[in-house]
Amino acid sequence: MSSHSLSSLVLNLGGELIGPGDVMISGLAPLESATAQDISFLSNPKYQQQLSLSRAGCVIVSPAMAADGARRGPCIVTPNPYLYFARLTQLWRQLTARPIGNEPLVHPSAVVHPEAHIAATARIGPLCVIEAGARVGEHTILKSRVTVGEDCQIGDRCIVHSGVVIGADGFGFAPDGARWEKIEQLGAVRIGNDVEIGANTCIDRGALQDTVIEDGVKLDNLIQIGHNVRIGAHTAMAGCVGVAGSATIGSGCTVGGGAIILGHLSLAPGVHVSAATVVSKSIHKPGQYTGIFPLDENANWERNAASLKQLHSLRDRIKTLEKEKKP
Amino acid sequence: MSSHSLSSLVLNLGGELIGPGDVMISGLAPLESATAQDISFLSNPKYQQQLSLSRAGCVIVSPAMAADGARRGPCIVTPNPYLYFARLTQLWRQLTARPIGNEPLVHPSAVVHPEAHIAATARIGPLCVIEAGARVGEHTILKSRVTVGEDCQIGDRCIVHSGVVIGADGFGFAPDGARWEKIEQLGAVRIGNDVEIGANTCIDRGALQDTVIEDGVKLDNLIQIGHNVRIGAHTAMAGCVGVAGSATIGSGCTVGGGAIILGHLSLAPGVHVSAATVVSKSIHKPGQYTGIFPLDENANWERNAASLKQLHSLRDRIKTLEKEKKP
Amino acid sequence: MSSHSLSSLVLNLGGELIGPGDVMISGLAPLESATAQDISFLSNPKYQQQLSLSRAGCVIVSPAMAADGARRGPCIVTPNPYLYFARLTQLWRQLTARPIGNEPLVHPSAVVHPEAHIAATARIGPLCVIEAGARVGEHTILKSRVTVGEDCQIGDRCIVHSGVVIGADGFGFAPDGARWEKIEQLGAVRIGNDVEIGANTCIDRGALQDTVIEDGVKLDNLIQIGHNVRIGAHTAMAGCVGVAGSATIGSGCTVGGGAIILGHLSLAPGVHVSAATVVSKSIHKPGQYTGIFPLDENANWERNAASLKQLHSLRDRIKTLEKEKKP
Repeated sequence: MSSHSLSSLVLNLGGELIGPGDVMISGLAPLESATAQDISFLSNPKYQQQLSLSRAGCVIVSPAMAADGARRGPCIVTPNPYLYFARLTQLWRQLTARPIGNEPLVHPSAVVHPEAHIAATARIGPLCVIEAGARVGEHTILKSRVTVGEDCQIGDRCIVHSGVVIGADGFGFAPDGARWEKIEQLGAVRIGNDVEIGANTCIDRGALQDTVIEDGVKLDNLIQIGHNVRIGAHTAMAGCVGVAGSATIGSGCTVGGGAIILGHLSLAPGVHVSAATVVSKSIHKPGQYTGIFPLDENANWERNAASLKQLHSLRDRIKTLEKEKKP
Repeated sequence: MSSHSLSSLVLNLGGELIGPGDVMISGLAPLESATAQDISFLSNPKYQQQLSLSRAGCVIVSPAMAADGARRGPCIVTPNPYLYFARLTQLWRQLTARPIGNEPLVHPSAVVHPEAHIAATARIGPLCVIEAGARVGEHTILKSRVTVGEDCQIGDRCIVHSGVVIGADGFGFAPDGARWEKIEQLGAVRIGNDVEIGANTCIDRGALQDTVIEDGVKLDNLIQIGHNVRIGAHTAMAGCVGVAGSATIGSGCTVGGGAIILGHLSLAPGVHVSAATVVSKSIHKPGQYTGIFPLDENANWERNAASLKQLHSLRDRIKTLEKEKKP
Repeated sequence: MSSHSLSSLVLNLGGELIGPGDVMISGLAPLESATAQDISFLSNPKYQQQLSLSRAGCVIVSPAMAADGARRGPCIVTPNPYLYFARLTQLWRQLTARPIGNEPLVHPSAVVHPEAHIAATARIGPLCVIEAGARVGEHTILKSRVTVGEDCQIGDRCIVHSGVVIGADGFGFAPDGARWEKIEQLGAVRIGNDVEIGANTCIDRGALQDTVIEDGVKLDNLIQIGHNVRIGAHTAMAGCVGVAGSATIGSGCTVGGGAIILGHLSLAPGVHVSAATVVSKSIHKPGQYTGIFPLDENANWERNAASLKQLHSLRDRIKTLEKEKKP
């Protein structure tokens, strides 16, 4: 396990070090489990009490916490400790990564069509499939077993995790009596720069035009993005979200895990959808939106669910009571 | 980009052309964004206004819209414009597809067991796995990275998208004190003709008998089909649906995205389940069924959710008020 | 099709045979469809009527059902018929499996890093990817197209189905103005012994520490396990469940299909979450918990859903009525 001095970390990442620069750090850990060899951080003042009790070798704190931090022991003071911590994880990854050796950037087991365009600095992992006309940008990383379909594009500095399918056919059929006639999906998928896509997530190609994922979007695992969807820049979605076809989602939105966004809707920029919420109409105003059946012990749930199926008539009975009361 | 005359399109697909046959078309587009080089369609009369404003080189319309269509410019008149459009996308795909060259029908990177049966016209994409005893029918296409497990069958003219897993073990365990004893899944999966299966969807093998997907079923991405399920002909399911074990779903049903169908239930033919709805009991009558907590601003949701947990007692209080009122 | 005498089955699995030992069995089937060549079982007394009507060649029954069973025909009496049946499926699998031949335990198409550690008895299927530092235990089976990421560990006797991704990055980003800064995920995934993981399920690596799946856990298909999650021993989850980051789930829990467990929560041992339920707070007491909007015909649902958005004000109106009544 490699170890690094506090002064070398500050040299790389900035921040003001309070305490000795020669303290050696060999890991990153949460406040409560950190040892004297670990560096930790405090971003939320409500965990202030954990600060004083932490045995961390160093704690990253905000200016408001600098006095408390210094009283405890070595600390690094920076305006945004969580952001600093994020950059520290990146530095740490570099410092501790296995040497790559001289592996080729495109793994020999990947199946890359001769008419695909792979940027010189892109890394294509084992058993990926890159179809004709597809483009993968500079410094983009495809982990193992990623499919990029015909004519689909991925920008620069993207990370695409294992099992992702980009450019499967959108789900389009015209009814023909009892059976369905396939609508060929003639569009593709266009993904911007700095996008990250989680494992086994699917992004379908558009029917006539392209499905578009703008710059900086972050998608977690097992997400379904339907055809013709547009996701605005820097929007983030947690795992198991489903976005139905032709939905347009603004920039800077967040969508909690397991939420479902119905088709042909639009969400304004800055809309935040709670986990497991069903978005059944367009949302024009930024804010937090929720629709979850509250968890309960099963017996209570059964009683309330039964009443819920009569809620409309309960409402009518209240109206009747109110009318009869006013003579 | 290839371009095709209106008369050649009508020659292939039928319909009555009103206007000059030598108008050249180089793309398909929605009414609102179509240019003079595009062909578009109007299937829903409520978009009639878009028709008159559209700059499309030609619009596919129903007989009822023929006069309006002709007033605007070139049009193709056909009884079912949406179905005509679907067939046009198929023709367009043929006209514009990359030449396949002399690629083998079974990609050399696929792992096909010598005891698997692949029809002579089936196409097996890169990095697929076809296990012993599996069967793939005529003209069926497996895109990249599809697994077809032991003894599972896929009919003719099916399309199976990337990442699909057919024939993983159903989820079956017998409790043995605190631990679980595996129930080996001795059945397989039987898939009919003209079935389409979306990316990363899973269809488990049956416990004792087979899981059955009948002809013409269309499944979107990231769907889970449990063991022993039977899905009736021409039923369609949108993305992220979960169907628990031993459910029997009739023909001609539709299931919206993210819906969950519990195990051992049956749905009559012609049942339509709304997106994100939980089907917790059998449905014997065709119709549309729904169960979604309505979306709200978070603050309103919190108030209503809190009241919901007391709904049963609210009902009792209404009863009490009603009784006291009647002297 | 091979066939086996009742006496040979009892010799292998125990139980008391009532009836002739030379009855030959060639399949396992449910009571209602079993023929004279099949063996079946009755574990739930409520299906007692099916017992007398069954044409099975033999039925596995509990001591309480032995008299009824014997009256019908051959039966095997055992304290726990369902567990006996599970073991019978395993025996049957052995008796009827294709000969493996001399296939290598690690399929030649798998991409195994030279610094991965594969136990001598582990079986690695086609097109799997095992990264550097990963460990796969004794007698563990990875079906086709499984990814095991850097430094992730899988114990002994596990079964991992096709398309599973173990060790993709957890979903961690620090906000930096409008954009997101990646938090490198420095932990790994540790999976105990006797764990089964369903097709296309994803288990993310931890941010700082490891994501942990304890012994005997059973996960169905298309499940998402976020970073830093800990799942206690012998807990079972049905398909399409999502567990958000840093949730801690006790031992012996069950989670129904499509349920969502929010992040940073803890569930006590022995908690049972109903299908499609959202767990939005920690649960400290064992029991069954539910939160599902009840299914209804769409028209009724619409009326009730509209009323639900006014439930809080309905409650206030009831209060008012109650107050006015008491002079």
